[in-house]
Amino acid sequence: MSWATFVNNLLSGLLDVSRGNQASPTRELADQLRTLIATGRLEPGQRLPSSRAMARALSISRNTVSLVVEQLAAEGYLSTAHNRRPVVATGACLARGKIKRYAQSQPSRIRLSEWAQYLPQSAWPPAYAARPRAFQPGLADEREFPHDIWGRCLRRSAGSALRKKHRVHNVPELQAALLAHLMESRGIKARSEQILVVPSAQAAIALIAKIIVEPDDIVWIESPGYGGAFAGLQSAGAQVVGMPIDADGMTIARGRAAPRLIFVTPSHQYPTGLLMTVARRLELLEFANSSGATIIEDDYDGEFHYDGRPVAALAGLGLHDQTIYVGTFSKAMTADVRIGYVVVPEGLMRPFALAQRHLGLLVPVALQAALADFMASGHYRSHVRKMTRLYRERRDRLVESLATHVGNRLHVCVPAGGMQLLARGDAALEDVELAGRLERAGVTTLPLSEMIYHRSRERGLFMGFAAWNDREIEEGARIIGRLLR
Amino acid sequence: MSWATFVNNLLSGLLDVSRGNQASPTRELADQLRTLIATGRLEPGQRLPSSRAMARALSISRNTVSLVVEQLAAEGYLSTAHNRRPVVATGACLARGKIKRYAQSQPSRIRLSEWAQYLPQSAWPPAYAARPRAFQPGLADEREFPHDIWGRCLRRSAGSALRKKHRVHNVPELQAALLAHLMESRGIKARSEQILVVPSAQAAIALIAKIIVEPDDIVWIESPGYGGAFAGLQSAGAQVVGMPIDADGMTIARGRAAPRLIFVTPSHQYPTGLLMTVARRLELLEFANSSGATIIEDDYDGEFHYDGRPVAALAGLGLHDQTIYVGTFSKAMTADVRIGYVVVPEGLMRPFALAQRHLGLLVPVALQAALADFMASGHYRSHVRKMTRLYRERRDRLVESLATHVGNRLHVCVPAGGMQLLARGDAALEDVELAGRLERAGVTTLPLSEMIYHRSRERGLFMGFAAWNDREIEEGARIIGRLLR
Repeated sequence: MSWATFVNNLLSGLLDVSRGNQASPTRELADQLRTLIATGRLEPGQRLPSSRAMARALSISRNTVSLVVEQLAAEGYLSTAHNRRPVVATGACLARGKIKRYAQSQPSRIRLSEWAQYLPQSAWPPAYAARPRAFQPGLADEREFPHDIWGRCLRRSAGSALRKKHRVHNVPELQAALLAHLMESRGIKARSEQILVVPSAQAAIALIAKIIVEPDDIVWIESPGYGGAFAGLQSAGAQVVGMPIDADGMTIARGRAAPRLIFVTPSHQYPTGLLMTVARRLELLEFANSSGATIIEDDYDGEFHYDGRPVAALAGLGLHDQTIYVGTFSKAMTADVRIGYVVVPEGLMRPFALAQRHLGLLVPVALQAALADFMASGHYRSHVRKMTRLYRERRDRLVESLATHVGNRLHVCVPAGGMQLLARGDAALEDVELAGRLERAGVTTLPLSEMIYHRSRERGLFMGFAAWNDREIEEGARIIGRLLR
Repeated sequence: MSWATFVNNLLSGLLDVSRGNQASPTRELADQLRTLIATGRLEPGQRLPSSRAMARALSISRNTVSLVVEQLAAEGYLSTAHNRRPVVATGACLARGKIKRYAQSQPSRIRLSEWAQYLPQSAWPPAYAARPRAFQPGLADEREFPHDIWGRCLRRSAGSALRKKHRVHNVPELQAALLAHLMESRGIKARSEQILVVPSAQAAIALIAKIIVEPDDIVWIESPGYGGAFAGLQSAGAQVVGMPIDADGMTIARGRAAPRLIFVTPSHQYPTGLLMTVARRLELLEFANSSGATIIEDDYDGEFHYDGRPVAALAGLGLHDQTIYVGTFSKAMTADVRIGYVVVPEGLMRPFALAQRHLGLLVPVALQAALADFMASGHYRSHVRKMTRLYRERRDRLVESLATHVGNRLHVCVPAGGMQLLARGDAALEDVELAGRLERAGVTTLPLSEMIYHRSRERGLFMGFAAWNDREIEEGARIIGRLLR
């Protein structure tokens, strides 16, 4: 390509630094020249025009052109010498025959792993939508959260955490504050080092599965149950099997192949809100002991218990050393705090800590320190206390409003705690279709049939009450009543 | 068990609420009673003493006893009736024969997955120790970081992020700020939605592997190379193979079984600091295109380039649609910021977003918003600019000090950028042993032989220079010189 041809090409749009409008002229010119060289449209040995000529042809400053030439020379695309026009370097061009392939390439050429291909099939309903509204389950009322105090804790820790040389993955002060809290409210006994702090309870579940489950191992979850657990356990290749819920909690299928792992939510079963009875707790522990299964106890919203104090955790009974306790701050604080934790058995601290690092499941030290501060100074406890009162009122309000507007079309299971309730319908209720109509009418609910992991005709609506005020609850119940009639 | 026996048992230490000293008397008594009931030492139907009698026997307040009884009744361990002493509930006891098992159980009874069992073998040297000191690699100088400004950004965003209804996993403002930065400094072209924000670059690597790699797929990494990548890729079951480095960068073994994934650090190869030449970049892209391999480009410390501007990323060349770009803020800000990111191909946005959620790889919205603020207001850029000047001086200082104190016993590869350098020794250098002696003498280095993933006699020391001032660098080099003589 001669100089004349090259300048012609410039002018005919081969190079056009105003085209993108996205980056600076410097960046645009550098990118375009690089591509022309790499794809062989500018051949090795080809001499470029002078910076002045290029600048004129492209209506940009000569300085810009000089900068770009310098940059491409540093990267090895051009050779420069004092007072000579730059030359396209050898070896900076792809083999000729290959060029067509790149042009044909499609964004989707990457082959996914089998797991990734089936991801959409285990997607569970989002914990929150772009604009949450009654009765989106799983949401705390963030309007009531002391953002200013939390912001101060964050600011304080941002400066001081590193100076304290907290070069650890799990901050000891947070582990200690958490342990004190878990001992007092759940009866958990552990050494504080057994608590790993991870970005979410979901990460904790996936982490445990990865450490314990071999592909095709059987894992039990409750049915109806938590889709996030299903997805997290399946990520390790587990064959996830749903165990029906009865009045005592998850049923135990003794005759069937033994599970490696059992996932339960004994404080307030998700989604029924049932407290697992002592008898079933003991049966479960005994079964796990005799079958060698490990239990994951997910205490996702165990902070909020309305009738009596929060119940002691399974992991606190000291009867089974294979119960792994998982918790989160996203219910008691805000969905955004993104701190989950797992109390790992003493004998497994090292593999868990290694796995936490290998998978990058780390929470900023400053954030952990801020939370330790928030807990130690009593703000956490007083916020939970305040919200417990408020959420109990809201639970009662939702039960009442549903009684008024929906009557016996739905059977409400009043939960002893937590942030949501299940209203069951009969087997003929088209709950998915109903939830869709409700969504369009301005009310968010989750259909029970999408939370079922065994053969069952259970139907109903799952509703959060914690994040909504009296007016919103009343209004939402009214809409449900209208659409059910 | 009669009441008299029971009270005797109390007195003989079966119940002792002062024993633990860890929890409150209420908690202690509740836990101990629960265990006595669950293990059958208190039988179903057994009537407990009155609260007054128990309080007296245990030297605690009657109020405490009443509270505990109420709590255990709520949990189902006791039955209570007005004016009657509480009774141990039926079904609150494990079957008799089982009790011994629990007592014998060991903390290590949980069987680990094969991956978890071999974790220690793929553990790479920690990015930072409890008390970092020269020449710990991978560390930014956090003494120079504007903690106050960052703290203000955090505080501001803590309150406002949620009010803005940022109910997303990846905050659009951060995606936009990041994209603008990546376009300008790396030539990355993408839509901002293609950027996923995850807790660390390590999480990004493990995530990509999980999405693309099938167990036993072959994956290439550079050798010497980054242990974190080895571990992250192996977590998906990949067979990780090391490809030797030559002067151009990672070599490409065309004759061998084709890899599914290729992990490279083209900006400053880890640990040699080499810039991958244009010729090798094109060869790599061409090979990946023809073999169908996906490339992970880890630009871990690409911000800091000393001789010329940072080099355009592989992913910015627009020649291969299967290059996935990974970055982190832990080098340019502080190791603790815990924000990594991945620019995913346009066609894979949905599986990546699903996988991010399934594995819980989320970063607090407030933290993302603070970072967006920090970038948009120019603080990020000016900090990087300041540190680039400083780190270049420190690189030069370390090269100089090593020349003075170590002379030709080690051959220093002067890196064009980054935060660390490699000093090679001859094949007889016992680098692991030397690094151990240096550690005891107060200097941290990583032995090159622990970063090798192919058969090789390469030996040397890998040293970080970014986080240490002139005095610390001089002192460290002096110690190395002394121990090498």
